[in-house]
Amino acid sequence: MIIVMKNSVTTEQIDEVVKHVISWGAQAHVDRGDVQTVIGIIGDKAEILRKPWGSFAGVEKVLEVSDPFKMASRKFHPTDTIIDVEGVKLGGGHTCVIAGPCSVDTEEYVLAIAKAVKAAGATMLRGGAFKPRTSPYTFQGSGEDGLKILKTAKQETGLPIVTEVMSIDQIDLVYRYADVIQIGARNTQNFNLLKALGKMGKPVILKNGIATTAKEHLMSAEYVMSEGLKEVILCLRGTRTYETAMRNCLDVALIPYLQELSHLPVIVDSSHSTGIRPFVMPVAYAGMAAGADGLILEVHPNPCEALSDGEQALLPNDFEYLMKRLEGLKAWNQRDWKTQAKSTK
Amino acid sequence: MIIVMKNSVTTEQIDEVVKHVISWGAQAHVDRGDVQTVIGIIGDKAEILRKPWGSFAGVEKVLEVSDPFKMASRKFHPTDTIIDVEGVKLGGGHTCVIAGPCSVDTEEYVLAIAKAVKAAGATMLRGGAFKPRTSPYTFQGSGEDGLKILKTAKQETGLPIVTEVMSIDQIDLVYRYADVIQIGARNTQNFNLLKALGKMGKPVILKNGIATTAKEHLMSAEYVMSEGLKEVILCLRGTRTYETAMRNCLDVALIPYLQELSHLPVIVDSSHSTGIRPFVMPVAYAGMAAGADGLILEVHPNPCEALSDGEQALLPNDFEYLMKRLEGLKAWNQRDWKTQAKSTK
Amino acid sequence: MIIVMKNSVTTEQIDEVVKHVISWGAQAHVDRGDVQTVIGIIGDKAEILRKPWGSFAGVEKVLEVSDPFKMASRKFHPTDTIIDVEGVKLGGGHTCVIAGPCSVDTEEYVLAIAKAVKAAGATMLRGGAFKPRTSPYTFQGSGEDGLKILKTAKQETGLPIVTEVMSIDQIDLVYRYADVIQIGARNTQNFNLLKALGKMGKPVILKNGIATTAKEHLMSAEYVMSEGLKEVILCLRGTRTYETAMRNCLDVALIPYLQELSHLPVIVDSSHSTGIRPFVMPVAYAGMAAGADGLILEVHPNPCEALSDGEQALLPNDFEYLMKRLEGLKAWNQRDWKTQAKSTK
Amino acid sequence: MIIVMKNSVTTEQIDEVVKHVISWGAQAHVDRGDVQTVIGIIGDKAEILRKPWGSFAGVEKVLEVSDPFKMASRKFHPTDTIIDVEGVKLGGGHTCVIAGPCSVDTEEYVLAIAKAVKAAGATMLRGGAFKPRTSPYTFQGSGEDGLKILKTAKQETGLPIVTEVMSIDQIDLVYRYADVIQIGARNTQNFNLLKALGKMGKPVILKNGIATTAKEHLMSAEYVMSEGLKEVILCLRGTRTYETAMRNCLDVALIPYLQELSHLPVIVDSSHSTGIRPFVMPVAYAGMAAGADGLILEVHPNPCEALSDGEQALLPNDFEYLMKRLEGLKAWNQRDWKTQAKSTK
Repeated sequence: MIIVMKNSVTTEQIDEVVKHVISWGAQAHVDRGDVQTVIGIIGDKAEILRKPWGSFAGVEKVLEVSDPFKMASRKFHPTDTIIDVEGVKLGGGHTCVIAGPCSVDTEEYVLAIAKAVKAAGATMLRGGAFKPRTSPYTFQGSGEDGLKILKTAKQETGLPIVTEVMSIDQIDLVYRYADVIQIGARNTQNFNLLKALGKMGKPVILKNGIATTAKEHLMSAEYVMSEGLKEVILCLRGTRTYETAMRNCLDVALIPYLQELSHLPVIVDSSHSTGIRPFVMPVAYAGMAAGADGLILEVHPNPCEALSDGEQALLPNDFEYLMKRLEGLKAWNQRDWKTQAKSTK
Repeated sequence: MIIVMKNSVTTEQIDEVVKHVISWGAQAHVDRGDVQTVIGIIGDKAEILRKPWGSFAGVEKVLEVSDPFKMASRKFHPTDTIIDVEGVKLGGGHTCVIAGPCSVDTEEYVLAIAKAVKAAGATMLRGGAFKPRTSPYTFQGSGEDGLKILKTAKQETGLPIVTEVMSIDQIDLVYRYADVIQIGARNTQNFNLLKALGKMGKPVILKNGIATTAKEHLMSAEYVMSEGLKEVILCLRGTRTYETAMRNCLDVALIPYLQELSHLPVIVDSSHSTGIRPFVMPVAYAGMAAGADGLILEVHPNPCEALSDGEQALLPNDFEYLMKRLEGLKAWNQRDWKTQAKSTK
Repeated sequence: MIIVMKNSVTTEQIDEVVKHVISWGAQAHVDRGDVQTVIGIIGDKAEILRKPWGSFAGVEKVLEVSDPFKMASRKFHPTDTIIDVEGVKLGGGHTCVIAGPCSVDTEEYVLAIAKAVKAAGATMLRGGAFKPRTSPYTFQGSGEDGLKILKTAKQETGLPIVTEVMSIDQIDLVYRYADVIQIGARNTQNFNLLKALGKMGKPVILKNGIATTAKEHLMSAEYVMSEGLKEVILCLRGTRTYETAMRNCLDVALIPYLQELSHLPVIVDSSHSTGIRPFVMPVAYAGMAAGADGLILEVHPNPCEALSDGEQALLPNDFEYLMKRLEGLKAWNQRDWKTQAKSTK
Repeated sequence: MIIVMKNSVTTEQIDEVVKHVISWGAQAHVDRGDVQTVIGIIGDKAEILRKPWGSFAGVEKVLEVSDPFKMASRKFHPTDTIIDVEGVKLGGGHTCVIAGPCSVDTEEYVLAIAKAVKAAGATMLRGGAFKPRTSPYTFQGSGEDGLKILKTAKQETGLPIVTEVMSIDQIDLVYRYADVIQIGARNTQNFNLLKALGKMGKPVILKNGIATTAKEHLMSAEYVMSEGLKEVILCLRGTRTYETAMRNCLDVALIPYLQELSHLPVIVDSSHSTGIRPFVMPVAYAGMAAGADGLILEVHPNPCEALSDGEQALLPNDFEYLMKRLEGLKAWNQRDWKTQAKSTK
């Protein structure tokens, strides 16, 4: 961390900062420039970095040098994490397509969807039994009935189940049915929930928040991992901007960026990022082209009857077409580029 | 709600939409224009409005006419809600200043702060015992020990206590000590928590989310109110933008805007919106000038030692100066304007 | 256009709106609902749509039905525009890669870059002689000297020249050298410049603004086209958000979205959207995967010596590797999807 | 400036950076920490700071220490700039209210408005003769006819004229009529226009861009000032966010923030920031409460007939009411706070 002092800083103010740095167990290197004095702080302890340096007299601003995440960082875990869900692998070159209805509605629909997405090549089944809705007056999810339907679908297709947990009191129930736990955008920074999941034993798909940065996304993964769980999947579902054409804005550059910063798998949810059926597919395709480790998509045979988010559901035919197109796609791979482009230099 | 059909729409597609509208218990008025066909839907039932109209063939877009909040809306409750916390009133012309440390640290500090802010004119005491922090490695709050310190401070000063609840499992504990419950920006759309609080009997200060709209803020209030609780205080703490000068961006226009849409009191948290001590005061002052019903501010006698957010804490002298300045401020009042400016027309 | 009236609207207020609608030459359909009265306005004249309806008494809000662009709209020109620049085609299935230095520096560098990108498969050469820089104290471009260097490079490689115009007084000079004119993000809404270019005879690459919407981007194209020029190329270079990982945020969903709304070609500038060399390539690749009509990229053999934007310049080896990878990429095509996915239904 | 090197940095890579720093005439201080190596660069020359450090091998990131603006900075000009327009002073404690129609329409309206705002206390008259409009099909301004009307209004009221210039070729004409030149949000980074105005002799009101930061706003002022003109007025008109309640979002914290960074006057345009008549006044009032040096507001007696932006125009009665309310307002003043709050410590 680097503390930039004001032009008008006094020797006493510099000494005061240095005194505190030392009292908190770190070292301070003072660099008195012609224009500006800068104090470098050495000592990578999170608590020290978080002290309110900005409130010391004479401080102009504070510049952070290191990233605050550790267990999620590739610096501390250089090889890709590979997650294994009942034989379905994700990360480190293994890609995975998770598909299913937004909300679990009828057993008939869910079974039909599960069979269709399995036939088309999906490797896991998604479906929400608890739904975070903006309005308290809309459908809030089918609860345990929905979870039972998902279990039936798993028995018939063999597809592992991905489903959402919205609060700590749902954990016991959901963990009886789910294989992978999903955390939605509104809970990305629900730190108590993250810590609770970190003590459990099932992989977690962690979506970015509506306006979290990529590094905050990693800090939320760090919350889960700091409690012991190693299997976290980062999911990009877009963030909010002033643009209203799409439901959200998903920057595919964050796929290789997160993969460079972290060893965790990165998947793309283009159903929520676009929110509009015809645009779900090209974004899913582009996301895989950019090197994503997988997709999570909503599929429904009759979107007009879906209990939530029907506008963004792919028809089974759409999904089948997308899966066929993905077969012929050779994804971008930063490691190949580093090896091949540079070797010719 | 209005459904705009594509230029290329067929009679069958129009009929299909109309059939569904009627089957869901509403009425459809079809207006076949020269350029575009538009279907108006009459029937203000939330479930109908939320159907996936966009997934019907031939639909170009859907325009919402009504706002989705009801109990929080001034249309359904025309007079200002006045909240009474042990004799301290808020709303309907009663303003209120809530002040205290960000985190509860030592009893000595908290008592000193409580006495100082009381002397300067604060009417409630704030202090966090449970803290939502971006990093799992930083101070997470003092828990029940902190709540006990707040209680002592209340006994000595008479100031009611405002403190944060982060998850459902903290409710029992916190309600034993708190007079007003605070919901932070990361929990604004933690719908399970909102519903749980709505069943309890104490007023809730609901901050806007990091990237919620004013109307979503009201929808979150609606979640609380739909469970029975009527006493919700809307708190503006800024939202995230590309600008990095301040911690967040608080638009004072939202104060009169929320007061026009809703009967609930609106207070301003300029400690979190600016994040920088010298700017907390002018924004607090401007917020009250714009007609806010109150303030919630962080005060600490020694910000360099504060356990969190020291950069934004006012010194007791700052707070005292601000309170003196606020005495001489005559707030803007939209009702006065409507009466006086128009009467001269 | 639809005008939604307030709950409290009076018959006089409705009549006042209707009277004005008729006086301005359009028709008004009043729909008095139980909850809300809505006035539909028929008559697609831009001036009428732009009247200040919101300032009429009793009006709650105004909902637009039609898009305001016409010549840029696919509704008015259903087939893809194909632009031909000295035999290089762009749009309607023809893709194009434009590459070169950010700024024109030395003849030696520019010639080397032009030959390298030509050998790797680029079809046009880019290079800035006039540079919009945030600081007046940094390099502002090499002016006519730079344009002459570009001309030499064209003579040696045959690559048509793409270069930027920043103001009307540069038009005469630049048009003597350029084959395609580029308008940068800070001039996207410089309407006088757009109109001036619309009267000239060379194709224009129009970048989106730092915070323009996709529809505003099209409205800026409309400004050019309303003066007569038909050959406008839309270029996505990302927009500004709160995320600081990349220089800007480019949503690939806007590629098929713009192609649906408009017949104009859409190209991707991932040099400016990411601003960081290793991320330029995966985003370029993903953009082409999503169906973009082309790329515009910065290449420099010695980025450490580049006069501007060295951080984002690809090395010639990078560019060659990217071009080889693009050969094997089969782009997404919305028309194929519509034909094939639905035919199996 | 500080260059943070990657964990994996080699001695050769460090030496390469240092070699370039020295070759560009600055000094490099290398600090090899246990975790990370950091290179501090001393030498405050803009060109050096702008070199593409990020493209050197082994560089992780670059942290800027100094702000890039100089003539606009309070560090280089500690006392407030006071601008005098025919006796009307602005800045350094002198406040100013500029009012008038958005567009100049008829002489009758403009004269009526000018007299009304003069009577209510306005000190300058605004009115647009050239209008930047999103659509080429809407009213583009009345040109010289409008300027003549403004001149008549000045002759009748004595109010100096504020009007917009959109491009370099309008300068000659507009300078014959205007006393103060206004630069709108779409031209904030039209650097050629800024430089041209900097060579002229009349004060410039420079609005922030639709998505510029406060520091970029100052850099645009620096563009004007670097050509010689000292009289620049910073105008806050809000920026674009995801919130759609208001037309834009104006953070009043930027008023004292800009005043701390710069000696230039800061005024508020709440007509454009809110875009909705009832919210123009409380934001204007709050802006003055926060210490703004002035206001610029749109007033029209018949907004339903206004040629542009009628929704946001104040009625003359509104304006008169606002001016009366402003008389009783004691603005926040950071200097008073620093003197008084600290003196009691």
